[in-house]
Amino acid sequence: MKKVTDLEGVFASGIHCGIKAGGKLDLAYLYVPQAVASAGVFTRNKCRAACLDYTEQCLAAGVIKAVIINSGNANAATGERGLADAEKTARAAAERLNLNPQEVAVASTGIIGVPLPVDKIVGGLESLLEQPERGEPDLAAEAILTTDTRIKHAYSEAQIGGTQLAVAGFAKGSGMIAPNMGTMLGFLATNAVISRDIAHRLLKEAVDDSFNMVSVDTDTSTNDMCLLFATGASGVEINNPEIEEEFRALLTECCVDLAKQIARDGEGAERLIEVIVEGADNQNDAKTVAKAIVESPLVKTAVCGADPNWGRVMMAIGKNPEVVVDQRVIDISFGGISVFAQGAPVDFDRKAAREHLRSPVVVIRANLNCGKHSARAWGCDLTMGYIKINVDYS
Amino acid sequence: MKKVTDLEGVFASGIHCGIKAGGKLDLAYLYVPQAVASAGVFTRNKCRAACLDYTEQCLAAGVIKAVIINSGNANAATGERGLADAEKTARAAAERLNLNPQEVAVASTGIIGVPLPVDKIVGGLESLLEQPERGEPDLAAEAILTTDTRIKHAYSEAQIGGTQLAVAGFAKGSGMIAPNMGTMLGFLATNAVISRDIAHRLLKEAVDDSFNMVSVDTDTSTNDMCLLFATGASGVEINNPEIEEEFRALLTECCVDLAKQIARDGEGAERLIEVIVEGADNQNDAKTVAKAIVESPLVKTAVCGADPNWGRVMMAIGKNPEVVVDQRVIDISFGGISVFAQGAPVDFDRKAAREHLRSPVVVIRANLNCGKHSARAWGCDLTMGYIKINVDYS
Repeated sequence: MKKVTDLEGVFASGIHCGIKAGGKLDLAYLYVPQAVASAGVFTRNKCRAACLDYTEQCLAAGVIKAVIINSGNANAATGERGLADAEKTARAAAERLNLNPQEVAVASTGIIGVPLPVDKIVGGLESLLEQPERGEPDLAAEAILTTDTRIKHAYSEAQIGGTQLAVAGFAKGSGMIAPNMGTMLGFLATNAVISRDIAHRLLKEAVDDSFNMVSVDTDTSTNDMCLLFATGASGVEINNPEIEEEFRALLTECCVDLAKQIARDGEGAERLIEVIVEGADNQNDAKTVAKAIVESPLVKTAVCGADPNWGRVMMAIGKNPEVVVDQRVIDISFGGISVFAQGAPVDFDRKAAREHLRSPVVVIRANLNCGKHSARAWGCDLTMGYIKINVDYS
Repeated sequence: MKKVTDLEGVFASGIHCGIKAGGKLDLAYLYVPQAVASAGVFTRNKCRAACLDYTEQCLAAGVIKAVIINSGNANAATGERGLADAEKTARAAAERLNLNPQEVAVASTGIIGVPLPVDKIVGGLESLLEQPERGEPDLAAEAILTTDTRIKHAYSEAQIGGTQLAVAGFAKGSGMIAPNMGTMLGFLATNAVISRDIAHRLLKEAVDDSFNMVSVDTDTSTNDMCLLFATGASGVEINNPEIEEEFRALLTECCVDLAKQIARDGEGAERLIEVIVEGADNQNDAKTVAKAIVESPLVKTAVCGADPNWGRVMMAIGKNPEVVVDQRVIDISFGGISVFAQGAPVDFDRKAAREHLRSPVVVIRANLNCGKHSARAWGCDLTMGYIKINVDYS
């Protein structure tokens, strides 16, 4: 499988700098020296980490060409010191990369409320960035993980404007994952030529249909960030509505790939849940209902137990009183097995339904039958493992 | 402790009619033959049970004088048959009680999507209502339970209008509990003289500050209902703003008492969590933040593990981007132990904090320091027990 550093002019690696115990990788970079554009979306949580304020300023000021990412410490709720530590990290990296400090973004993930061990990071950058043109995406993808159990890469390509365009990236995310703007760390690059404004708009739309439709536990992190770098290497310019639409689809495909990997690797998760809501009155309703199903702890525990308890799906569908729902016409199915049709229970094959609920990808489909809009959302089952991971974290 | 049937003219009991296995009680009634007024609030879930539609019609038509409650089956998502079964239950009870069918409300709780075994209920009513003027509140309170581990009674009284006024009742609720209108079953009676309109308004306000501030798992049931019956036996009329305010406080006290019992008995819960938010810009913000903290799975698992991980409280405070929050001035404490003050971490006694988090009632206090509004919310820790109870329910 191709990875982000297979794009011309995109470099990445990771090391252990001493934040995490046991020699685990905890410091990474993505470096795009010839970037022609960059864009970012950030958590909407109001108690957000200092590195987000810093990085947002950089994006507003111009094009960023690198991002330094540490795991093991979120640099959130660290008072005034937090921003100074983020800036210090960026300055140290900029010096090694011969960049302006404002061209270097900073992202952090890990425990909240503990001062960032910035000296360890600055020390680590010395060796990490000694020869920065490295193609070690697995090390980068590993160094940004927290409770994740696996690295997450994606590479999507399509023939656009007569050339092979690609969007690729890596991401992390396992707990404190809920839909409200880039709820994880994701770092993407593309070989398209694109303006900053269009890149930002298309990234926001792609994130809305991918990362923002994932929920592991409904909690919205203080540190989520998704960045996109454009190298321009393909020479294909995203400069008209048609080509924009094609590129948006490609970008979304790459984000959805990573988003599903995050859901699948949710804390303690044993299964990916894909919810498809159809027949909604409007797009917002479709998304709201899809999220309500995928976020319901009772639906999640039912999937964990492979229990075809569709009543809980019904409950989740009706949960938000603002949504247009008529329970007398709803259809529900598990993996194609109809369990509730036109508002009445179906006598279904429970054994077959249980078998589907035991598979690695569980598909719950609900047709509201009151409109033409549809949406997808992704989540995971709620297991003993989630509790085990979270009862004693700090 | 006094209970609801200690009010003059209020009767209740419960039996096993055959819905639940193992001879467990599953059918109850509350009977107020001389009721002068009644009021009810209902779930806002749009996929709601047939018994709610039926009972709401009764309340609109006049004063209800009894309610029949079954557990073990929710009569929700049961198609057209659901309403017929609710009506059949009411008719059978009305006949035995010499009431008009519209004077008998019906409430159900239990599994969704399974037809109500209405013949068992009608059969059970024969013996249950043979001598209906019974004072067996413990049997009634037990017969409405599902996954609850204990019965829940409350009795509040105060000197109002020169007389001892009382509000008393019983409730159930353990899972599928989240704040959005009467999220449980609650049955209250008072000896006040009150009009239907005032009773309804005051009940709604009391429920908003009590049951609607409880969350066990953020899931909103299809069947929640809270009913209030007024006997008028005290002769004290709730007929001016001052006495209304006093009665509202009494009613709220009784509802808060039951609400806390529901939170404490949340599925798998080992501890009651009380969240107090102060210094909010407005009342809605205070409630939103209090609920966000009490609903966060990461806060709930931290309490389960007695882990003073206040970063998760911080995360929950900022979660809703609509709320006025400035993270630089927030204070957080656990059981009076300050852990975060004026936006910066406090060097606190972790051992003492852990000890508090291990106590039966955990108090999390957050001052947003940007206004004068406050709110309280109640919930419980998220434990292995919750998962165990819910992985294979149907």
